[in-house]
Amino acid sequence: MLMTGGLCTGVCAPRLTSPDGRIAVETDINSNGHPVYSVTFDGKPVFKDSALGLKADEADFTIVTTATPGEITTHDSEWNPVWGEFATIRDHYNEMPLELTTPDGKKLTVRFRVYDDGMAFRYEIPEQGSVNYLTLRDETSEFNLADDLTLYCIPGDYDTDERLYIQTPMSELGENMNLPRHTESSLIPGLAVQTPLLAKRNDGNLYINIHEAALKGYPAMALDADPADLSFKSHLTPDRNGVRAYLQAPFTTPWRSVIISEDAPGILASQLILNLNEPSAIEDISWIKPMKFVGVWWEMFIGKNRTWAYSDKYNAKPGITDYSALPSNGRHPANTENVKRYIDFAAANGIDGVLVEGWNEGWEDWGGWRKNRQFLFDKAYPDFDVEEIQKYAAEKGVKMIMHHETAANAADYERQLDRAFQFMNDHNYPAVKTGYVGHVIPRSEYHSSQWMVDHYNHVAQCAADYKIMVDSHEAVRPTGMIRTYPNWIAQESARGGEYEAFGGNPPEHTVMLPFTRLKGGPMDYTPGLFEMNLPAYGEGSESKGLTTLARQLALYVTMASPLQMACDLPENYERFPDAFQFIRDVPLDWADSKWLEAEPGDYITVARRDKNSNDWYVAGVTDENSRTAVIDFSFLEPGKKYTATIYEDAPNADFRTNPQAYSIRNIKVDAKSKIKQHVAPGGGFAIRVKPN
Amino acid sequence: MLMTGGLCTGVCAPRLTSPDGRIAVETDINSNGHPVYSVTFDGKPVFKDSALGLKADEADFTIVTTATPGEITTHDSEWNPVWGEFATIRDHYNEMPLELTTPDGKKLTVRFRVYDDGMAFRYEIPEQGSVNYLTLRDETSEFNLADDLTLYCIPGDYDTDERLYIQTPMSELGENMNLPRHTESSLIPGLAVQTPLLAKRNDGNLYINIHEAALKGYPAMALDADPADLSFKSHLTPDRNGVRAYLQAPFTTPWRSVIISEDAPGILASQLILNLNEPSAIEDISWIKPMKFVGVWWEMFIGKNRTWAYSDKYNAKPGITDYSALPSNGRHPANTENVKRYIDFAAANGIDGVLVEGWNEGWEDWGGWRKNRQFLFDKAYPDFDVEEIQKYAAEKGVKMIMHHETAANAADYERQLDRAFQFMNDHNYPAVKTGYVGHVIPRSEYHSSQWMVDHYNHVAQCAADYKIMVDSHEAVRPTGMIRTYPNWIAQESARGGEYEAFGGNPPEHTVMLPFTRLKGGPMDYTPGLFEMNLPAYGEGSESKGLTTLARQLALYVTMASPLQMACDLPENYERFPDAFQFIRDVPLDWADSKWLEAEPGDYITVARRDKNSNDWYVAGVTDENSRTAVIDFSFLEPGKKYTATIYEDAPNADFRTNPQAYSIRNIKVDAKSKIKQHVAPGGGFAIRVKPN
Repeated sequence: MLMTGGLCTGVCAPRLTSPDGRIAVETDINSNGHPVYSVTFDGKPVFKDSALGLKADEADFTIVTTATPGEITTHDSEWNPVWGEFATIRDHYNEMPLELTTPDGKKLTVRFRVYDDGMAFRYEIPEQGSVNYLTLRDETSEFNLADDLTLYCIPGDYDTDERLYIQTPMSELGENMNLPRHTESSLIPGLAVQTPLLAKRNDGNLYINIHEAALKGYPAMALDADPADLSFKSHLTPDRNGVRAYLQAPFTTPWRSVIISEDAPGILASQLILNLNEPSAIEDISWIKPMKFVGVWWEMFIGKNRTWAYSDKYNAKPGITDYSALPSNGRHPANTENVKRYIDFAAANGIDGVLVEGWNEGWEDWGGWRKNRQFLFDKAYPDFDVEEIQKYAAEKGVKMIMHHETAANAADYERQLDRAFQFMNDHNYPAVKTGYVGHVIPRSEYHSSQWMVDHYNHVAQCAADYKIMVDSHEAVRPTGMIRTYPNWIAQESARGGEYEAFGGNPPEHTVMLPFTRLKGGPMDYTPGLFEMNLPAYGEGSESKGLTTLARQLALYVTMASPLQMACDLPENYERFPDAFQFIRDVPLDWADSKWLEAEPGDYITVARRDKNSNDWYVAGVTDENSRTAVIDFSFLEPGKKYTATIYEDAPNADFRTNPQAYSIRNIKVDAKSKIKQHVAPGGGFAIRVKPN
Repeated sequence: MLMTGGLCTGVCAPRLTSPDGRIAVETDINSNGHPVYSVTFDGKPVFKDSALGLKADEADFTIVTTATPGEITTHDSEWNPVWGEFATIRDHYNEMPLELTTPDGKKLTVRFRVYDDGMAFRYEIPEQGSVNYLTLRDETSEFNLADDLTLYCIPGDYDTDERLYIQTPMSELGENMNLPRHTESSLIPGLAVQTPLLAKRNDGNLYINIHEAALKGYPAMALDADPADLSFKSHLTPDRNGVRAYLQAPFTTPWRSVIISEDAPGILASQLILNLNEPSAIEDISWIKPMKFVGVWWEMFIGKNRTWAYSDKYNAKPGITDYSALPSNGRHPANTENVKRYIDFAAANGIDGVLVEGWNEGWEDWGGWRKNRQFLFDKAYPDFDVEEIQKYAAEKGVKMIMHHETAANAADYERQLDRAFQFMNDHNYPAVKTGYVGHVIPRSEYHSSQWMVDHYNHVAQCAADYKIMVDSHEAVRPTGMIRTYPNWIAQESARGGEYEAFGGNPPEHTVMLPFTRLKGGPMDYTPGLFEMNLPAYGEGSESKGLTTLARQLALYVTMASPLQMACDLPENYERFPDAFQFIRDVPLDWADSKWLEAEPGDYITVARRDKNSNDWYVAGVTDENSRTAVIDFSFLEPGKKYTATIYEDAPNADFRTNPQAYSIRNIKVDAKSKIKQHVAPGGGFAIRVKPN
């Protein structure tokens, strides 16, 4: 393929292969003068010739006259993440730079890396006399599928990732992604999908995940889709003036990453995206600690007529209105007494922390985009006694998590950031949950445009200066930057557990997330829903959690995160103390992980070893269909005896009709054990495996 | 006029008159349903019926069904500015609210105030059930001239006020304001002028100045002009999405102010705009001190091949590039040794402070709009030893002024603001000169759009938290906010002295500024140019200061400011020590001011009494024509004897041919003295009058 028909005028590229030789990348210049690459796996094509390139006002790197491969080098090392799914990660790849020259003599390097679990490339604009500033108009990276793969994806959107996944053949994407487009919608025009995008070949022998790694100084990438051609092309989020990015040479783009596997578990096991990120920029990481937490939060969602706001003064203005003179609306749970109740619950149950939403001035008036000032981050409501809560939490040994909802007014947040973090230090808050609901201010930006990408990274870096951990909600989808900022301990950036109160998350949703969104980094999904009958958020109808109770336990393991909420109300946990024991026990940091069986949107079974003990945890989830999971315990230490405590769906459990039916039983297991485990429709199971 | 032809359906407005009865305002509803006002002075019309109104997506206040005058109240008080042209200012006016009701029942109040020296009105959107957020599309305030006045104005522009004034009959404005419009221009489309706008009636018995006061939470106003109709209409600066302002009820707009006088000195003497502003928001004002300063600045302008940048590494990046590893370009005057030279000069000459530009990382690469990060405000260049300079300045009793050039990246400045001001506190800098050169970031904004107005006010407020005085350059034109933030000690916001290096400022320019730009607040014009032969900025030709030396001394008095630079190089001052004595002596804060003669663009003669002594200072400037000023010393204390030291143009002085010819003489004066003073073309004079 390399030499036929191409215009390759320099020394053409050799095949760059993975260390195990199964993945191969070839490069060329096509008949239109575009630099192209192609990918094969076990000799079968994955991507046909796919263009490479950047197009700026000042330089056009989409047409080249030479494409000269540089030296192939091999890298093999190990590193230890601060927290995660593995204690040690191997970083093993072959690398090759491809030096491009445009007709007017400008230079661009495309750097390829090929791992056993995938490939990646990025653009490097070298320092050169003829290129300094670049006003980037387009990136023309293509991913031209060799087959009509089945896609698992959400629509391309500049502002949000909070959607359910569509499963469709690429060729029928257009018919299956028929979304209403409102005036204020930030849906990408035309047909586009968000990454991480999962795709599967019909023969079941190829799974790929297309995403990006190390997103900084650049907008997030979505993919324009052409179903007729089976092709994708990078679609960078522009600013509202239509510019994709302002760059300056030398500049290195994020990696375009493709995880490639012969099976679905291989996608889940891949650490490609983390490997493509830079090591920690934070030297002292001793203060970064995984956390389990409860919080004043869910009661605002479930139709109990509770509000984030302290008063009903709909146009109260922080910094102007005297809140101490306002009467409380009596429906404000972020008050000292109620917060103490959560602190008590956390202390009694070994839960590390308590989050409180609605503690600060500004919630009455959700101005969002309409206001240059929305919230104050160092001004508590009159009924939230910061000092008293600080004292009480310290006495009880419970950590407090602060909430910074910005209403997507990132400009106002940056304005206050140092003062806000100093306030957190002064009151002993080690972690912050940030929020970006609504349209972004600066009004030139979207949630995933270049300026905002810089913003999120800035917040993580600035938080590190104050030894603060960050859990960002509604921020741009993660790309493994957690490796560089391990204090950026979790993100939302997908449709999370809160949607159980907005009509529910179909069971398959949490069987899709680990294959897609979670490849970028852990999610603060907020599992732990024990009461599925929910008065609806807002007026009128009810909502229903689309899950069994046992499944909620499984999510702590199938959707691993160093920051995990127990989302439900203390009183609901007190109704099921034996089931809640699993949430108390489950670790947040893992020495090893093994995916025993998996299929996107259908089921996942995973075993993980606690980083701080020899306990293993095994968990499985299914979609809306009942199934029998097969658990092969061969991962256990041979010869050693273990007790497995199984939290499982009762035989008659069903997420639609009988979600709270579960049972708990103990069995003896060892490395030779292999058991069959019933999983109810919309159900799951969670097993603690303890050495005897 | 009030009752005839109008549709005034409620109780119609009575005439609201000034305390002295000379100015009268009448209101009505015209035949199109628009609320209107008109103004007379001494019974002659100033403004014919002129519309009032606001138009938002959510409410249209331009058509009303009722216009009901409220009670007329009288206010008479005195206040003492922290610094300024007067020790005491009288605030004396009659006020009337006009309550408007729209056909759909929405309410708007227009509040009128009439002073002896002018009138003003503002819009007040009251709290009401039917109006909360407003997306403002237009303000329809008209100023419909009753006569074809002569205008003195600069073109309407969203980003800059740095232009020369045009003098033209209103009816010929279009022919006289024929500016080239580039693609990237921020000139207002159509025919528009900036405020403060001065206008004069041909009979010489009416001068008006149209501007605004107390600009906050709202965009700056320019005026769309219709020469055929002799009419102006408010043109609010939009953001780049086309929205003028995001408002929320209750909201109060800035005042639309009209200074009205029978003569030109009356315009200069008016304190209307300060009176319309709110009192100081800063309680402890003890640390706010007028300052005279020299600085490392002019040498970068005058073609000495000096640079703000430390190195020639054109793409150096603050926070990324290791500047300590870069070689100095050897042309960087913001170095410790040179700064010490300025400190020595200041100490030897009683100059309070030293400004240093180019001290911090980022100047190599003037990315401006193209970069989300431009400068670091707490990172000095390797050859600028912050600690050493701090120590040296303290020993010499000299204050340091920091420079924060933002490249108009206000977002990045806000991000760093707390850290930057803390750095200033740590290193003993009591004042900062801010700069906003280039296109604004956030990229949705202009220099005078709502978000940026909020920004400047935020900087002033935040600086006050750190007891820092602010001198903003390239910020929105001032509107008297210095009364509310007296630490906002000066602004540029006009074509300043630096233009002497860019082709020169025609003499009439500084005879226009006091009638226009300076009505909003003091200007850091940077007078004190002693060497007029200037190697040009940049390559090639030379520039020439269009001024005599004596005129430069006069500017310290004719353009009073609590912050005054002595702009020239120490070595140039050392050539003229007797003339420099005036700069050493001249006060920055005044007990009283009297304009003895004035005509816009032609001449000004003013006498001011020092706030801290019984000395008077008298100064005069002319345009390009020679003239004889007449100074009547009747402002002196009767019976008391004084010595006047006169710094004047030599008889053969001329700004074109012999600018440095001056002489100094002493004469005896008392309250009965009346002298004739020669002023050279482009010249001026400055007199210190000291009691014997």
